[in-house]
Amino acid sequence: MKLLVLNGPNLNLLGQREPDIYGRTTLADIEQSVRELAGKHGAEVDFRQSNLEGELVTWIQEARGNADVILLNAGAYTHTSVALRDAISGTGVPTIEVHLSNIHAREEFRHKSLIAAVCKGQICGFGAASYTLAVHASLSISSKK
Amino acid sequence: MKLLVLNGPNLNLLGQREPDIYGRTTLADIEQSVRELAGKHGAEVDFRQSNLEGELVTWIQEARGNADVILLNAGAYTHTSVALRDAISGTGVPTIEVHLSNIHAREEFRHKSLIAAVCKGQICGFGAASYTLAVHASLSISSKK
Amino acid sequence: MKLLVLNGPNLNLLGQREPDIYGRTTLADIEQSVRELAGKHGAEVDFRQSNLEGELVTWIQEARGNADVILLNAGAYTHTSVALRDAISGTGVPTIEVHLSNIHAREEFRHKSLIAAVCKGQICGFGAASYTLAVHASLSISSKK
Amino acid sequence: MKLLVLNGPNLNLLGQREPDIYGRTTLADIEQSVRELAGKHGAEVDFRQSNLEGELVTWIQEARGNADVILLNAGAYTHTSVALRDAISGTGVPTIEVHLSNIHAREEFRHKSLIAAVCKGQICGFGAASYTLAVHASLSISSKK
Amino acid sequence: MKLLVLNGPNLNLLGQREPDIYGRTTLADIEQSVRELAGKHGAEVDFRQSNLEGELVTWIQEARGNADVILLNAGAYTHTSVALRDAISGTGVPTIEVHLSNIHAREEFRHKSLIAAVCKGQICGFGAASYTLAVHASLSISSKK
Amino acid sequence: MKLLVLNGPNLNLLGQREPDIYGRTTLADIEQSVRELAGKHGAEVDFRQSNLEGELVTWIQEARGNADVILLNAGAYTHTSVALRDAISGTGVPTIEVHLSNIHAREEFRHKSLIAAVCKGQICGFGAASYTLAVHASLSISSKK
Amino acid sequence: MKLLVLNGPNLNLLGQREPDIYGRTTLADIEQSVRELAGKHGAEVDFRQSNLEGELVTWIQEARGNADVILLNAGAYTHTSVALRDAISGTGVPTIEVHLSNIHAREEFRHKSLIAAVCKGQICGFGAASYTLAVHASLSISSKK
Amino acid sequence: MKLLVLNGPNLNLLGQREPDIYGRTTLADIEQSVRELAGKHGAEVDFRQSNLEGELVTWIQEARGNADVILLNAGAYTHTSVALRDAISGTGVPTIEVHLSNIHAREEFRHKSLIAAVCKGQICGFGAASYTLAVHASLSISSKK
Amino acid sequence: MKLLVLNGPNLNLLGQREPDIYGRTTLADIEQSVRELAGKHGAEVDFRQSNLEGELVTWIQEARGNADVILLNAGAYTHTSVALRDAISGTGVPTIEVHLSNIHAREEFRHKSLIAAVCKGQICGFGAASYTLAVHASLSISSKK
Amino acid sequence: MKLLVLNGPNLNLLGQREPDIYGRTTLADIEQSVRELAGKHGAEVDFRQSNLEGELVTWIQEARGNADVILLNAGAYTHTSVALRDAISGTGVPTIEVHLSNIHAREEFRHKSLIAAVCKGQICGFGAASYTLAVHASLSISSKK
Amino acid sequence: MKLLVLNGPNLNLLGQREPDIYGRTTLADIEQSVRELAGKHGAEVDFRQSNLEGELVTWIQEARGNADVILLNAGAYTHTSVALRDAISGTGVPTIEVHLSNIHAREEFRHKSLIAAVCKGQICGFGAASYTLAVHASLSISSKK
Amino acid sequence: MKLLVLNGPNLNLLGQREPDIYGRTTLADIEQSVRELAGKHGAEVDFRQSNLEGELVTWIQEARGNADVILLNAGAYTHTSVALRDAISGTGVPTIEVHLSNIHAREEFRHKSLIAAVCKGQICGFGAASYTLAVHASLSISSKK
Repeated sequence: MKLLVLNGPNLNLLGQREPDIYGRTTLADIEQSVRELAGKHGAEVDFRQSNLEGELVTWIQEARGNADVILLNAGAYTHTSVALRDAISGTGVPTIEVHLSNIHAREEFRHKSLIAAVCKGQICGFGAASYTLAVHASLSISSKK
Repeated sequence: MKLLVLNGPNLNLLGQREPDIYGRTTLADIEQSVRELAGKHGAEVDFRQSNLEGELVTWIQEARGNADVILLNAGAYTHTSVALRDAISGTGVPTIEVHLSNIHAREEFRHKSLIAAVCKGQICGFGAASYTLAVHASLSISSKK
Repeated sequence: MKLLVLNGPNLNLLGQREPDIYGRTTLADIEQSVRELAGKHGAEVDFRQSNLEGELVTWIQEARGNADVILLNAGAYTHTSVALRDAISGTGVPTIEVHLSNIHAREEFRHKSLIAAVCKGQICGFGAASYTLAVHASLSISSKK
Repeated sequence: MKLLVLNGPNLNLLGQREPDIYGRTTLADIEQSVRELAGKHGAEVDFRQSNLEGELVTWIQEARGNADVILLNAGAYTHTSVALRDAISGTGVPTIEVHLSNIHAREEFRHKSLIAAVCKGQICGFGAASYTLAVHASLSISSKK
Repeated sequence: MKLLVLNGPNLNLLGQREPDIYGRTTLADIEQSVRELAGKHGAEVDFRQSNLEGELVTWIQEARGNADVILLNAGAYTHTSVALRDAISGTGVPTIEVHLSNIHAREEFRHKSLIAAVCKGQICGFGAASYTLAVHASLSISSKK
Repeated sequence: MKLLVLNGPNLNLLGQREPDIYGRTTLADIEQSVRELAGKHGAEVDFRQSNLEGELVTWIQEARGNADVILLNAGAYTHTSVALRDAISGTGVPTIEVHLSNIHAREEFRHKSLIAAVCKGQICGFGAASYTLAVHASLSISSKK
Repeated sequence: MKLLVLNGPNLNLLGQREPDIYGRTTLADIEQSVRELAGKHGAEVDFRQSNLEGELVTWIQEARGNADVILLNAGAYTHTSVALRDAISGTGVPTIEVHLSNIHAREEFRHKSLIAAVCKGQICGFGAASYTLAVHASLSISSKK
Repeated sequence: MKLLVLNGPNLNLLGQREPDIYGRTTLADIEQSVRELAGKHGAEVDFRQSNLEGELVTWIQEARGNADVILLNAGAYTHTSVALRDAISGTGVPTIEVHLSNIHAREEFRHKSLIAAVCKGQICGFGAASYTLAVHASLSISSKK
Repeated sequence: MKLLVLNGPNLNLLGQREPDIYGRTTLADIEQSVRELAGKHGAEVDFRQSNLEGELVTWIQEARGNADVILLNAGAYTHTSVALRDAISGTGVPTIEVHLSNIHAREEFRHKSLIAAVCKGQICGFGAASYTLAVHASLSISSKK
Repeated sequence: MKLLVLNGPNLNLLGQREPDIYGRTTLADIEQSVRELAGKHGAEVDFRQSNLEGELVTWIQEARGNADVILLNAGAYTHTSVALRDAISGTGVPTIEVHLSNIHAREEFRHKSLIAAVCKGQICGFGAASYTLAVHASLSISSKK
Repeated sequence: MKLLVLNGPNLNLLGQREPDIYGRTTLADIEQSVRELAGKHGAEVDFRQSNLEGELVTWIQEARGNADVILLNAGAYTHTSVALRDAISGTGVPTIEVHLSNIHAREEFRHKSLIAAVCKGQICGFGAASYTLAVHASLSISSKK
Repeated sequence: MKLLVLNGPNLNLLGQREPDIYGRTTLADIEQSVRELAGKHGAEVDFRQSNLEGELVTWIQEARGNADVILLNAGAYTHTSVALRDAISGTGVPTIEVHLSNIHAREEFRHKSLIAAVCKGQICGFGAASYTLAVHASLSISSKK
């Protein structure tokens, strides 16, 4: 199984930025946790981050045929990007929406996810563990095929 | 670790009711999966279902001191019950919101969860696996204490 | 043909409560009219009332295999209960929405029925006659099968 | 008893137009059913259809003194016509709102009836049977006078 | 000066219909008052009523070159007709919006006039006197040219 | 007959302020026109202006027993003052709402009058003539008593 | 005078649950204060709590003839229950809405009370004293009869 | 190929009415352009205009079997008519929505087209050329069959 | 203890104005009741009324250091004044919101209090007794310090 | 150059009131800073404060011909006063909107300024420095003439 | 004549992505059709695609002086990009909005185009033919200059 | 002191694009003014422009430790970008929101700034002078540290 893990804007700041909300774990720490868990189950991981909406769109498009599941933490673009939504429904690869914080417990404008409607499911609120839960979820999806 | 798994209205119909949305797994199947996974990690499980909003409120209240984490699939009450919200914030036990289907991909009125703001996090869209993911999440919460 | 006639909160007060809106007929009078008309057409009637949302949910669930048509006057829960909606769509038994008063001619918040979208049809505004019209409607549905 | 049965725009297409929603029964079939049932109870029927909002307004006005009950399926004008509403409240003849489909289970803009607030009651969702149920309802209203 | 006085749907019922709101004066009484006052000031009056939105549109179009001022009581179409609005702005004849009742003191949906934005002014709430006030207003407009 | 003519904020600037919208007539010119027309019909006029909401409230209160009709151009307070509304309904003196411009043809926030619901009627859009039309309206109201 | 004091969901947790908002006083403490004050004025007190919406509905219904005033702290159901509203207007017993906290100073969704429109008045924000104030209010209502 | 070109209210005024928005071309000019282009491609044209919503409904109904494509400039009824929408979906003939002006660049209330959801496509903003573009579009639709 | 009792616009009319809503008690009667009850408990009363929003603002500002509790019936300004809200939060003196009528049972625009969020609590619906209840509430607040 | 600096309700409390939001600087401190900076550039300063909306309106009206630029911190009236807006557009003197706090970062109701649309520009969020920045801005405006 | 044809996010996937909505034609096919038709009329074509909002903004800016008409299918950015809107109004080159699908017949959030207000016109719903129709429209615009 | 001045989409067009709204000053002119004023006060300036949302996000992230204050004119992204908001709150560098035009006096959709809530303050409406005012503001912020 191949996992494509995509991280949106400002996630490169993780561990420095607003630790009260996002914790002190860095994106590199998360990448390592994901690789470890995935490795245990024989899954490959492609892990990326971009601040550019259009680059995330392109990466999602390229997942077609190259990944079995996408783990997407679209960050702020979750709430503003129809382009990501169209990319997900266009690529046809099952996508899991991941958030470090519980977006439903924050500001009103973060409650609405424009991409949720085309994702398989959503995991949010567990900090870095949201990513490893999503790896578990990927395995569950994969085993059903 | 003690897990209290609460299921709201109509979840007793699982496996019979609208299988296109909810799948053919029964609530008993889910209970078994939860017990197995929890058992592996030495966690106890108290698994219940009720169609009565007030009974769910009472069970959540009683978790105080009797459970380490609540897994709550509040079903339809997710979208209409302030009483459940108050019970969760009153009981002080970390609560994980669980849904079989991706509520954000369904009718508009299911996008809004009245309880999300007082829950630790949300897992939805993975069918029966949403529950086992929540068990993993409980372990993650517990290990941080 | 078996008819399950369910009455929601406060309908037990019928005949005493706000007669300007609901008339002086009691729920027992209505039950009798329903039984008479149903009896003429060889239909059995199970007639109940509850103030508890969850009990109404359970009764609707139990209709599966035990009733051919549900006549549901959900009273105030019409406007607030997603749980009843899910029970109706889950039970699979054709359900007719009944109201004594014309809910569309009353306060704004009574115009919206959360259960209408999963019911066969709606009859409202004819007082006790709404129920007997619904019996006629049940016969019409039944004869089409 | 004299019944005036008025049909709004596009109901002349009945049986041809979108049979998945409206069925294959024609307006002539419905007229016949209404006349039969009304005839049994000694009631006269005046049955009309128009695509013109203003013509429907005029017919409702003329009901004053010429009809005991109006059965009105205003079709699309249900959702857009204040003129029909004013005609109904002006004419003073009890009016029953009839719809073939369950308007509350269709597109959002069909949930709101501008005429409901001035009608006696509403019957919708039973196909052609909505009309015969309305005849029953008319008899019920009439017998109360 | 030539005045075109147009009356919309249900105004032909005036004096019979809902006298609590509209009074007992008939449309013929109003016509007479208008003719008398206009006559005193040497103005001609063309006074019409229609229940048809499209016929009112046509009459407004024909005012171009044939009338100096239009007095328009569009009745219910005030709140629903963009076609009347377009006819008024297209015809170029100054138009005065007239209402018997104070539309701003009635149901919410009567507060919004779709035609107000293209009318010279609005007079409402004075019963039949709304029309004679509008004749005064016409003289005022005319004298400014 | 005694007329109390009240003018709200900024109307003292009339003739100087934004002549494209309000014309070049001053408030003194309007007062003179009102006095002339009222004088012809034997009516007394008390004509005032204030920029203070509370002072307008007091003047309306004092009209009780001292005026037969109030002509009120509340200016900007039309759209923001519940206090004026309460004063009008409290004083019991019939009040006519007057505006120089057609408020329904201007910015959205000027379409809503908080005082309209407790006024006899509304006259707007005729510039200074709105006031003399209101004098005519007052005579019409008075003659009906 | 007989007082029926009803407490809704989660009020049984009082004193333990979120003391920052609700204080440390228990429901038993409140009951005692109410009984003391009522006792001084010769009034009987029936004091109950339930987490079940339907049970509260039933208790309100039973007040008919058994209580002179209802003191109702409906807790979370204040904001979601039309059934309680209908029970109050059906029972005909004057009802006083009580809240420990100032609901208008908390989350937006707590500002709207569905039951307020059918209650005599509202007292909120004074902690346990809200109840004793409501006893005073009951005496005031009672003395006016 | 047979084209039915329908024009709604006020389009008969074209060339006279508000030339800044709609240009100086008359409806007759447009008809000629349409006939010329259609003629080149061997298509017949039936070109009509009405101010009556109901007449437009009837013409659309009659297209069934008599036209291959409808070109519909519904004018103001675009924004208010559910009856036209139902006629289009009922007739089953592919319909192209045409507007002279770019409705999305005008007043807010013109941005919403009630008929768009049942039309093949929309062409707006090109003045008279919107019609000839729609003829091209018709040929494109027709060639695909 | 020193009480500052402030009364907003139109409360000087009390007893004359709309007695169906506000009763026949005058503001002087209320002042006397307040003084009597306060006197019994050794509290001083400063009782004022103004129709001017700005004057109420000034009086609230001056309470700083001169009053222990403010009883504020802001009348219509309750629903429109941010200035009063800022004055209350600026003065730092605990303020109790008082209303004669149950504002939540009246017109929609009276349900929203702009000042509630900065007040200690709200008492409404008990007529003149609302004030004496507020005196009791003041004593309760005071005794807690 | 002459500067008119106007301060709305509660700004007289500056330095005492809610120092967390507004700081400890008093209005007198600000006046001094403004006078110093203006003095350096040879500008005169007229500096006033009022709690009365109508007085602020009058002062703005009087600026016509007496001031080159108005600096207006309307305080709470920013969000509720159409009268101030009309005064500004009526006076014709360029007006700069000033706020101590960043109104867009506070409660939702403070985000909307009713006067912004008729002001030259807005400076907010810099505490007392907002005023001196506005003096700089005045000089910039003035130098462009 | 020079045409700049710009394609937004995900249009590079055309022919693969969701063929039920967008058809099987690729973007290369469309480019060829556009070039052929433009070539026949002696027009040059510059045809590009980008997933990056900012790159589309830059290309539109560069059109100034380099293109006579822009054909813009902004894809998902149609509904979210104010930057594109500003680029179009800034560049001054007439722009035609093109969509393959009828955006008004799809999800609610696709009905609103943020760029429509600054475009010449809109063509949508004709699949690949939307582009060739836009070429025709460009010629029509160009011939008018 | 180090200032980072960031300019969003389309600001590179300044001086050419819509001079009625933005004036004829170019971005280079503004850069020069900023450098001059900053230079006088010994501050360094880093001045950049980008059409790419993601590049602006990256630049803001990099300000951490490299700039004392950010001056941000985010152009159109002001109204659509949550990513910029998160970058600002993540970087921790005080940020001043700058706009050439008064955004609150333009189209409705420009009134809402998504970044305002995390900025120090806002300066808008003074054309190029908005930038130099922001330099003054930066000095004021800096001097307080």
